[in-house]
Amino acid sequence: MTRLFNDPDDFAAEMTAGFAAASARWVRAVPGGVVRSTAAAEPTVSLVVGGGSGHYPAFAGLVGPGLAHGAAMGNIFASPSTQQVHSVAATADQGRGVLLSYGNYAGDVLNFDAAQERLRTAGVDCRTLVVTDDVSSAGPQERDRRRGIAGDLTVFKVAGAACEAGHDLDDVERVARLANDRTRSLGVAFGGCTLPGAGEPLFDVPAGRMGVGLGIHGEPGIDEADVPTAAGLAGLLVDGLLAEVPDGAGARVVPILNGLGSVKYEELFVVYGAVHRLLTEAGCEVVDPEVGEFCTSFDMAGASLTLLWLDDTPGELEQLWSAPCDTPAFRRGRDAGQHAVTVPGGPGAAGTAPLPVPEAGPGSRECGTRIAAVLADVAAALDEHADEFGRLDRVAGDGDHGIGMQRGGRAARDAAADAAGRGAGAGTVLRRAGEAWGDRAGGASGAIWAGMLAALGTALGDDTAPDTARVAAGVSAAERAVERSGGAAVGDKTMVDAIVPFHRALAARSEAGDDLATAWAAAAREATTAAEATRELRARLGRARAHGDRSIGTPDPGAVSFALVVRTAGERLREAAEC
Amino acid sequence: MTRLFNDPDDFAAEMTAGFAAASARWVRAVPGGVVRSTAAAEPTVSLVVGGGSGHYPAFAGLVGPGLAHGAAMGNIFASPSTQQVHSVAATADQGRGVLLSYGNYAGDVLNFDAAQERLRTAGVDCRTLVVTDDVSSAGPQERDRRRGIAGDLTVFKVAGAACEAGHDLDDVERVARLANDRTRSLGVAFGGCTLPGAGEPLFDVPAGRMGVGLGIHGEPGIDEADVPTAAGLAGLLVDGLLAEVPDGAGARVVPILNGLGSVKYEELFVVYGAVHRLLTEAGCEVVDPEVGEFCTSFDMAGASLTLLWLDDTPGELEQLWSAPCDTPAFRRGRDAGQHAVTVPGGPGAAGTAPLPVPEAGPGSRECGTRIAAVLADVAAALDEHADEFGRLDRVAGDGDHGIGMQRGGRAARDAAADAAGRGAGAGTVLRRAGEAWGDRAGGASGAIWAGMLAALGTALGDDTAPDTARVAAGVSAAERAVERSGGAAVGDKTMVDAIVPFHRALAARSEAGDDLATAWAAAAREATTAAEATRELRARLGRARAHGDRSIGTPDPGAVSFALVVRTAGERLREAAEC
Repeated sequence: MTRLFNDPDDFAAEMTAGFAAASARWVRAVPGGVVRSTAAAEPTVSLVVGGGSGHYPAFAGLVGPGLAHGAAMGNIFASPSTQQVHSVAATADQGRGVLLSYGNYAGDVLNFDAAQERLRTAGVDCRTLVVTDDVSSAGPQERDRRRGIAGDLTVFKVAGAACEAGHDLDDVERVARLANDRTRSLGVAFGGCTLPGAGEPLFDVPAGRMGVGLGIHGEPGIDEADVPTAAGLAGLLVDGLLAEVPDGAGARVVPILNGLGSVKYEELFVVYGAVHRLLTEAGCEVVDPEVGEFCTSFDMAGASLTLLWLDDTPGELEQLWSAPCDTPAFRRGRDAGQHAVTVPGGPGAAGTAPLPVPEAGPGSRECGTRIAAVLADVAAALDEHADEFGRLDRVAGDGDHGIGMQRGGRAARDAAADAAGRGAGAGTVLRRAGEAWGDRAGGASGAIWAGMLAALGTALGDDTAPDTARVAAGVSAAERAVERSGGAAVGDKTMVDAIVPFHRALAARSEAGDDLATAWAAAAREATTAAEATRELRARLGRARAHGDRSIGTPDPGAVSFALVVRTAGERLREAAEC
Repeated sequence: MTRLFNDPDDFAAEMTAGFAAASARWVRAVPGGVVRSTAAAEPTVSLVVGGGSGHYPAFAGLVGPGLAHGAAMGNIFASPSTQQVHSVAATADQGRGVLLSYGNYAGDVLNFDAAQERLRTAGVDCRTLVVTDDVSSAGPQERDRRRGIAGDLTVFKVAGAACEAGHDLDDVERVARLANDRTRSLGVAFGGCTLPGAGEPLFDVPAGRMGVGLGIHGEPGIDEADVPTAAGLAGLLVDGLLAEVPDGAGARVVPILNGLGSVKYEELFVVYGAVHRLLTEAGCEVVDPEVGEFCTSFDMAGASLTLLWLDDTPGELEQLWSAPCDTPAFRRGRDAGQHAVTVPGGPGAAGTAPLPVPEAGPGSRECGTRIAAVLADVAAALDEHADEFGRLDRVAGDGDHGIGMQRGGRAARDAAADAAGRGAGAGTVLRRAGEAWGDRAGGASGAIWAGMLAALGTALGDDTAPDTARVAAGVSAAERAVERSGGAAVGDKTMVDAIVPFHRALAARSEAGDDLATAWAAAAREATTAAEATRELRARLGRARAHGDRSIGTPDPGAVSFALVVRTAGERLREAAEC
């Protein structure tokens, strides 16, 4: 929803003023919108674009050298008035004529056409190119009835580059028409935006469903479907667009994956990976793709795919699409990279061969196999508790502790099984497990677990089966590794609160002569007790924060997950000791 | 919420692959993240940045000529592992040393420090600059404990530009430290993101409230407050940052207004207008501002303001900040604009004097005053029904009909009062009202109402008080104007469905000798009946669409609002006739 405004009635005007203040390098405000704040060395044809507000960077974000000369900025989701279009176009005109270009909506057609009449009456040569890229809004036989959505960008970019190159109005109109003929888009929406001051969203899509072909102001779509996977959405969009390849198109194509507002970059990149693959599999050559926000609808949740179909060999359209431009929201240029050369492949691009496993004594190898089994149990336990750890972490942290422990545990399990399967000793199994844990889990807890397993592994070595004292010494080394890396002490409510009593109990039981399973079980009970105390603190923290009290600080769920790991390991040790 | 993913466990890896496929002009994937796909002519110091995923364009979107050489990309909101950082940095190293730079979070510090140790052991000169810009995360005496948020951008940009300029590692480290010392940020959040596959948001903020100083992973803030106006938020952020001007700073400052994900550009521009004004009022000179998304948290609803404090005269820091760069998400350059010159002011920048009012006869002037009173009633009625028209329009359109009619009605009221107050006749009052309606409302309905009022005004003229026949002729002209501009016919379920019976009834009653108030009231009843039929159609449309039936088409609420306008006008005419 839109939250930040003053008087909603002033929103569009204040937005325009703020945009102009932030973008003075490129634009200046004039009645009705903005025009460039820069001038080319020689007069050119002027490209004037526009439409309702709420679609940034369309339209004002595309004004600057190499792209548009002006943008008429209407009220929110409303066409600019005839006066607005006329004012912007008359100011932008350099004496070589004006091309008006905008998406195909009734209000825009009405007002831009009326402005064109006024300009012509005043002796300005003026043409119009209406963008009609949305395949869902009418059939292929009625292309001129289609709406304009994110395909605005390709048409504007091509026309703007032709203006910059000095083409005359006939020719600018011709390439803009060619770009529109070669551009197709299809979009989906998961939910609508709420306009400034409005009490409800512009439209709703039921939870878990999406509107297929829904317009950028909530216009009706052609279908409704369950929200698919990212790959499923890529398939739907690519299939929909490949069903209508424009006449004269080659196999080279520019994909533009556009977010409507609150479908974000990371999701778009996941979808784009599949789009790229599907286009390539269909025999297309992908050229110069774009992934980002190019035509939005405030914070509407949705995405669209646009394809600009080029010729089979690099030609006019491709040259105009990739020509330099510099606008507030869309820039292409080689200024900074002019001495840069593309480096294909290079170090790190190659795959890595599996690390060889060092020689190990038979006792240590048997122990390594047992450790791999323990780590499999631990991974299962972490899977089971991942949601709980995530919830604990959300009280005070970023909520990723559950997923981090889960990823680390799985990676450690797999690495340990691999190493043990290839005859590694206890030390190597633990070290490899630690490396995998750290690499896959990332984060602070990944680094800490990697350090603990490495320290324990180094202490156990690969020579003989370790006794209880050697395990206790290894745990002591692991504890020092944690304290060194985290800088925390007992009472700081971190994992240290659990590992310190665990290590002390294990050392004491080991000195008292207990076998490993017994000593370990006792130590695990100490860790669990300590972890429960931090868990209780977390619950109090949640309640205190709900009441605005932030004095308790931010306990870490690491103590709780540590206790789970050592308890799980203890159960497997006891079973092994019993059989 | 995050909706588009495949297996949530694969999200970060698939995101990286999709990003690399979309961005091959700038980057290539290596184990652990990405490095540039281009090479400079001469080896330089390498800048390696990184952090968890979910903050795009931080961090991978900032790799390219003039900025970073590589980005280590961790899992979602989790630090990259030591191995990841090491892999990216070792690949990016060009033999002149590596600067590691990232936001201050425990997991990142742990893993980047460990990677630095490994690089140093291998003989690579490696330094670290931790970004600490978030003033809400610790006091000014504990700056090194502060978190890094959107201020990453200024530090990375300055350091990257120094690398590109050939500075040695000592000097790159020095300017990066200077940039961090001069950078301060403060943010607010209205709601948290939901991670791929998670069942609930990372954190909640109560509706209508915001967390002040909340971190980019939901870390605790310093305060909670009601969501302010856009200007109120600008005040809070500017005041918070001006309270701690860095030592050595001049009055020149770069503001960066950053959206966290679903607070969108239009809102940011409204806020920025106030930020710009407040900074200027406080005696600052604003240099090279940026408004957009630079460090996000998926689709978290929030915004932050960063200030980079420059020296009093343009110096090193400013030169490095504004130097060209070319990365997937952040570009600066003059390639396209190299022949462009800034044009201050120019045509259209000046204000406009009020249009003079033409001479008018006394009867027409009296009628003009009455028309202004009618338009005041119409504006009040449109205010009252704006929400209802918005709801009607949302069934099939973009929901802006209510707000458009409201804006147009108010503008017509004010313009008519102004013209009538300056002695205008009936025709001029109507024409001025029409121009204002069209200009302020925009959209299709704005253009149509502008055309109707202009046609009516031209028919009535400014000479004498019009009789019923002249009004009927004017309405006939207005009807033709609607049909001409919209291209619709009776039965198309548009405003034409109401204006045609209105015009016919008015003409018939006028010929039958009725006075204007009687004839108009009868005609308004016809329009209302016709409008009710389209309203019923709309209700059926809503129900049909809910059942997936799209066969009814898309009626326009213009008939309903037209009927309201003529009914309201008729009531005022009857009152005038009665007294």
